[in-house]
Amino acid sequence: MSAPLTRRLLAEFVGTALLVCIVVGSGIAASQLSPGDPGLQLLQNSTTTVFGLAVLILVFGPVSGAHLNPVVSAVDWLLGRRAGTGLTGRDVIAYACAQTGGGIIGAVMANLMFDQTPLQLATHHRITGGHLIGEILATAGLIAVIFTLARTGRAALSAAAVAAWIGAAYWFTSSTSFANPAVTIGRVFSDTFAGIAPASAAGFIAAQLIGALTGLALVSVLYPGTASAADVVTPHRAAH
Amino acid sequence: MSAPLTRRLLAEFVGTALLVCIVVGSGIAASQLSPGDPGLQLLQNSTTTVFGLAVLILVFGPVSGAHLNPVVSAVDWLLGRRAGTGLTGRDVIAYACAQTGGGIIGAVMANLMFDQTPLQLATHHRITGGHLIGEILATAGLIAVIFTLARTGRAALSAAAVAAWIGAAYWFTSSTSFANPAVTIGRVFSDTFAGIAPASAAGFIAAQLIGALTGLALVSVLYPGTASAADVVTPHRAAH
Amino acid sequence: MSAPLTRRLLAEFVGTALLVCIVVGSGIAASQLSPGDPGLQLLQNSTTTVFGLAVLILVFGPVSGAHLNPVVSAVDWLLGRRAGTGLTGRDVIAYACAQTGGGIIGAVMANLMFDQTPLQLATHHRITGGHLIGEILATAGLIAVIFTLARTGRAALSAAAVAAWIGAAYWFTSSTSFANPAVTIGRVFSDTFAGIAPASAAGFIAAQLIGALTGLALVSVLYPGTASAADVVTPHRAAH
Amino acid sequence: MSAPLTRRLLAEFVGTALLVCIVVGSGIAASQLSPGDPGLQLLQNSTTTVFGLAVLILVFGPVSGAHLNPVVSAVDWLLGRRAGTGLTGRDVIAYACAQTGGGIIGAVMANLMFDQTPLQLATHHRITGGHLIGEILATAGLIAVIFTLARTGRAALSAAAVAAWIGAAYWFTSSTSFANPAVTIGRVFSDTFAGIAPASAAGFIAAQLIGALTGLALVSVLYPGTASAADVVTPHRAAH
Repeated sequence: MSAPLTRRLLAEFVGTALLVCIVVGSGIAASQLSPGDPGLQLLQNSTTTVFGLAVLILVFGPVSGAHLNPVVSAVDWLLGRRAGTGLTGRDVIAYACAQTGGGIIGAVMANLMFDQTPLQLATHHRITGGHLIGEILATAGLIAVIFTLARTGRAALSAAAVAAWIGAAYWFTSSTSFANPAVTIGRVFSDTFAGIAPASAAGFIAAQLIGALTGLALVSVLYPGTASAADVVTPHRAAH
Repeated sequence: MSAPLTRRLLAEFVGTALLVCIVVGSGIAASQLSPGDPGLQLLQNSTTTVFGLAVLILVFGPVSGAHLNPVVSAVDWLLGRRAGTGLTGRDVIAYACAQTGGGIIGAVMANLMFDQTPLQLATHHRITGGHLIGEILATAGLIAVIFTLARTGRAALSAAAVAAWIGAAYWFTSSTSFANPAVTIGRVFSDTFAGIAPASAAGFIAAQLIGALTGLALVSVLYPGTASAADVVTPHRAAH
Repeated sequence: MSAPLTRRLLAEFVGTALLVCIVVGSGIAASQLSPGDPGLQLLQNSTTTVFGLAVLILVFGPVSGAHLNPVVSAVDWLLGRRAGTGLTGRDVIAYACAQTGGGIIGAVMANLMFDQTPLQLATHHRITGGHLIGEILATAGLIAVIFTLARTGRAALSAAAVAAWIGAAYWFTSSTSFANPAVTIGRVFSDTFAGIAPASAAGFIAAQLIGALTGLALVSVLYPGTASAADVVTPHRAAH
Repeated sequence: MSAPLTRRLLAEFVGTALLVCIVVGSGIAASQLSPGDPGLQLLQNSTTTVFGLAVLILVFGPVSGAHLNPVVSAVDWLLGRRAGTGLTGRDVIAYACAQTGGGIIGAVMANLMFDQTPLQLATHHRITGGHLIGEILATAGLIAVIFTLARTGRAALSAAAVAAWIGAAYWFTSSTSFANPAVTIGRVFSDTFAGIAPASAAGFIAAQLIGALTGLALVSVLYPGTASAADVVTPHRAAH
């Protein structure tokens, strides 16, 4: 029923590249156009991400599930293991590689579009205790949203709901909600508004893993016993 | 058919905690990032609340109805009494406790994320005659939206419509629309942008109760005679 | 099938009161909170109107069609005459009175909420040649949106689409899109951000009537021959 | 089944005129109302375009498909050729003429509404290497969104998804996403915020053509073998 793995990996690669390009590109535009107000810049950056992320999930969902995020793929594997649904362990690794490669290419694309040095290393240090709590919370919520909607037969709402969650988490978490290891790694390669220094990236990713397990625990407690429908976005009416 | 009470209370607790965390956290971020323009801060705060609240209703709705608000639970009980649907009186008290406890924890979480003193007492006095009218109006509208959609078979629109109503009421009411006793009590515990002094909280909650009864009266006049469908969010296609 | 006239008039009265309260109230809040930037004020005002208007259509639609606008009621009557559907001529007059009365009360409510003199006369003169073109265009588009969706069986999208159209027309028309005689008259009674001087109101209303006929002509050319489905919002699954 | 060509051309003409009027008009309003912050101006401009474009697709879609864009019409023809669906080559030329004529009239309408010289020539030069990459990316994404939704039976989501994509691409591309030859030509005729100098327009249109082919390639790889459903917006429940 599902598309061949190569096509799914292409979808994850292109989708994550576009996601990082959206985040980094709008960050550059915002800081150039509204230099005086970092809050207005973040509003432009978050609004763009909401719109762009929702569209990417709609476009790539029927092919690969539009995970665009290694922790989403990993939770899909964890939840589907018992029922034999979801990704296999090998798929998860392939997905994560495609997502991370895409994330890096997306940062380069944004740098190129804005006539900047293509490959940069970010110097924006972001680690504080509060920021790590923020990443845990943002990622836990993301996982809870995705798998709750899948388990309750409402995966068609994922595009809007995931985008809305990230749009909110940009603001209510102190970390501005990276919530995605592939995007975090991609954002290392642009020393602009949305960049993150390599040393901070490692801590953020660790917090995201803890957050993913927290979200998984919440879903399991609130919606127990339905492992069979764990797939994130079931390709509906799609032609392969 | 419905989830066990403990699971529903957990949903109300976590959901209200996240709601207050969203409101308080984005208020802190907004005031730090756009210090020069309180209107821009409120726009960032209200936009975040719209996105976050819609997602919380989607995630917790199938478990507990995602009331996240004691006056919503109370009206659910009032409307459902005759028909034997809705919450019981004891459920309402349990819901209100879970919601209020969650609200306080949510404020603490926001304080922690932004590296502030965890437990604070707000000093922002908000009572004026106009603000109390604002709270009545905001709460009446909230009740009208929720129970109109339930009574007309459109509860699936609640997440978007409730969020949109609150997003509008942040601006068109003079009080910025608390409209929720549990959230009001939670916001007492953060002396930041979204905080409210304890003395103001009491008056706001009284106005919210009047507003809830006003909204209930409006629904009863516009949509009479359908007490059987009074449940707020009927768990649809959810697995328990 | 439809609700008794008195209940429909109550819905139109309360709905239009809330609409004007939303427009005027958010205008006052915006001008108080962001005094330095009229563009930011208009963005706050238009965003609030988008959210609020969509919710009002959802809440009052199943009772009265949620016209909230005399030119919408008049076009409903014009389109439905031949087929015997839609409002009667007497209904239109009753609707228009309820809407206009509601509009005035809404302005008073907003004035009261913001601790201002309850009844004011606006002094904001808004007539220019370009503004009248703007009103024609905004109203023509509004009529085209509403009756196209009704004629193509998509009235359930009206709430979102009407709100989006008005949100756009706030900005792309020079007049900021009043597009509604009842709201225009209501806005005469608040000398604040959203107010309009009585002398300008007359010209705006004349332009709105021309716009309504233009919109009606466009719908008739694009979607001919389906007068039977002219009702704006068919009460769906509503209990009366 | 489909509407006569003249009616479809009228829909494309009026729809594209309104689209350019929305883009140019809101650009003028934004630059007049928020003169100090070009980023805030672009946010007002992009938000208006999101709302307006979504509504135009809903209104004109059932008549003509609401392409409002020559490259969309051209891809519709390319994809539908083998299966005998979609536009004919002659239709595409007629569509493109109606769209381009509409685009020019829309700029004149916006100039008139804002009491400016009706016909102007823009002097805003926009070509850089990065901007051309931006146009390729924005147009490729636009084509991918439209034809993916059509191929997967979700054309009803086109209005929201196309609008969201353009709203994001205003920000994350360096070119602010024209992505439409008819709109690009229309924007030549207003020397205001959204204008583009004739010399830049040619380069932008070339980039858009490359982008359209790139998007077509992406759709063909991700969703192969379903040429029969290539029509953009299938008129659903529409009366002709």
